[in-house]
Amino acid sequence: MREREFIARLLTPLATHKAARGLADDAAVWLPPLGRELVFTHDVLAAGVHYRPDDPPSDVAWKLLAVNLSDLAAMGATPSGVLMGLALGPAQDEAWLAAFTDGLKRVLDLWNVALWGGDTVRVPGEAVLGLTAIGTVAPGRALGRGGARAGDELWVSGTIGDAGLGLAVAQGRMAPDKTLLTRYRRPEPRLALGRALVGVATACMDVSDGLLIDAGRLAAASGVGVEIELATVPVSDAAAARIERDDAGLLGLATAGDDYELLFAVPPGSDIAALATPKVRLTRVGQFVDGQGLAVIGLSGAKIVPERLGWEH
Amino acid sequence: MREREFIARLLTPLATHKAARGLADDAAVWLPPLGRELVFTHDVLAAGVHYRPDDPPSDVAWKLLAVNLSDLAAMGATPSGVLMGLALGPAQDEAWLAAFTDGLKRVLDLWNVALWGGDTVRVPGEAVLGLTAIGTVAPGRALGRGGARAGDELWVSGTIGDAGLGLAVAQGRMAPDKTLLTRYRRPEPRLALGRALVGVATACMDVSDGLLIDAGRLAAASGVGVEIELATVPVSDAAAARIERDDAGLLGLATAGDDYELLFAVPPGSDIAALATPKVRLTRVGQFVDGQGLAVIGLSGAKIVPERLGWEH
Repeated sequence: MREREFIARLLTPLATHKAARGLADDAAVWLPPLGRELVFTHDVLAAGVHYRPDDPPSDVAWKLLAVNLSDLAAMGATPSGVLMGLALGPAQDEAWLAAFTDGLKRVLDLWNVALWGGDTVRVPGEAVLGLTAIGTVAPGRALGRGGARAGDELWVSGTIGDAGLGLAVAQGRMAPDKTLLTRYRRPEPRLALGRALVGVATACMDVSDGLLIDAGRLAAASGVGVEIELATVPVSDAAAARIERDDAGLLGLATAGDDYELLFAVPPGSDIAALATPKVRLTRVGQFVDGQGLAVIGLSGAKIVPERLGWEH
Repeated sequence: MREREFIARLLTPLATHKAARGLADDAAVWLPPLGRELVFTHDVLAAGVHYRPDDPPSDVAWKLLAVNLSDLAAMGATPSGVLMGLALGPAQDEAWLAAFTDGLKRVLDLWNVALWGGDTVRVPGEAVLGLTAIGTVAPGRALGRGGARAGDELWVSGTIGDAGLGLAVAQGRMAPDKTLLTRYRRPEPRLALGRALVGVATACMDVSDGLLIDAGRLAAASGVGVEIELATVPVSDAAAARIERDDAGLLGLATAGDDYELLFAVPPGSDIAALATPKVRLTRVGQFVDGQGLAVIGLSGAKIVPERLGWEH
């Protein structure tokens, strides 16, 4: 399927928002809402690097949108529209593209985001998929990584490490488990939580490379240190069935990456539990301290030194 | 050079605009100017497809920004900021990245555009470089492809076909010529012209796939036909020295692509010549007519049927 046909037959029907101009012009045009700041993010997923080439195309579309919306969530922003830059390889045949587009339509609808435009090219190698997400936030209220203070509590949404186990399932290194596989392939951007944390959290980011390494980054950006208690790391039932509940097992979860949960700092005593929902639990996993660096406290209560903290790029 | 080091050492010094937040957060935050509509475009350049892997990295940076700003120019917009999505291959070593970043800084300064953010990933294959450009335009005034009417004149900026000859030079199919090579590697987005055409042009686009094919697209989007007179196609001195001035030679130029000139419709009798500058000539190359399709009139005055119109994707 040629680029032109892909755009005309599969993408244009999705681009119903006025800003997209039916994908007929050289660019999208959008009147931003009055009294809002705009938030922009762009993440790239490369086949064989950030997803498995045999992942279902609809799940690839899900992940491409979700990882970008997760960045908006981490800033407390509400998504408005996206532009895609798709470099498609020989493996992206008509069936792949149709399934990708079907999945994309579902997630655009699910998260109420408009497709505004982009570009599609053919390459001889593996696919490289980029997406720019544009959102809005009240002026001056965007969350950032730099505001945590010594004494603030460290909280995280959802459960940690499921996606890493899901990757092991996808790779055949672990017995099939649909819950874990879905957590790897279909991360849920915590948009409602991000919005609720505006004015509450002193610092926020999403966990993409591992709870430990990302907590260290949040602390470093804030100029403080952080302590994490492994015993408090939230573990799903599915993950609990697969790992030993010891330091090594919990460290595996806390360094696995691809969680796309929100990791945030709040002043001590904040009523964070009130922001939890039946679907998204919130857990205090540590605290910020004077100084710098990351300290990990094992189940025995003693500090331990992990061999690795997560994914370094 | 790892992603983290590339960002910290080479990209962060370029991201001086407040919206970029020092590339330290999950997304960029920007307060849009009051009373402006926003214009968004995203184009992808793949190594070996849209540029030659041995093109100088600073020229690749130039082209990546220029092709996107050309889309903004075609809408009459003024650029504000960009986000990049860089999938870098093994060929993008430290020297390549340093030269790319140097070139990027120069063109960001040249066109007064800010680097707001983006993503950098490593891939095993060839580089795929995406860029989202964000600009502004007066509300309701953005140019588009759909407004040409029968009787409107068709005009084009600059000279046509130089970049195609420059590609032949780069490929060693034609004797060295710095002017033509530069036209291929360093297209000039016609930003000032695009702004000047707001309220003047009835339709506008940039020429990326060839004058003929793009004129046909402009006409099709407007629901009219278009006639182009080959004798009027603007030819640079450098190109004139390389081609025969016959139908075949001019057709070669008018189907070559990568010109990134503006192609636009204006009502008959508009004083378009007044918008020309010493560096950017403007030439009437045809007119829009009732009906549909593209007619090409050769040097003899008779219609001719080209074998191809430009680059199909």
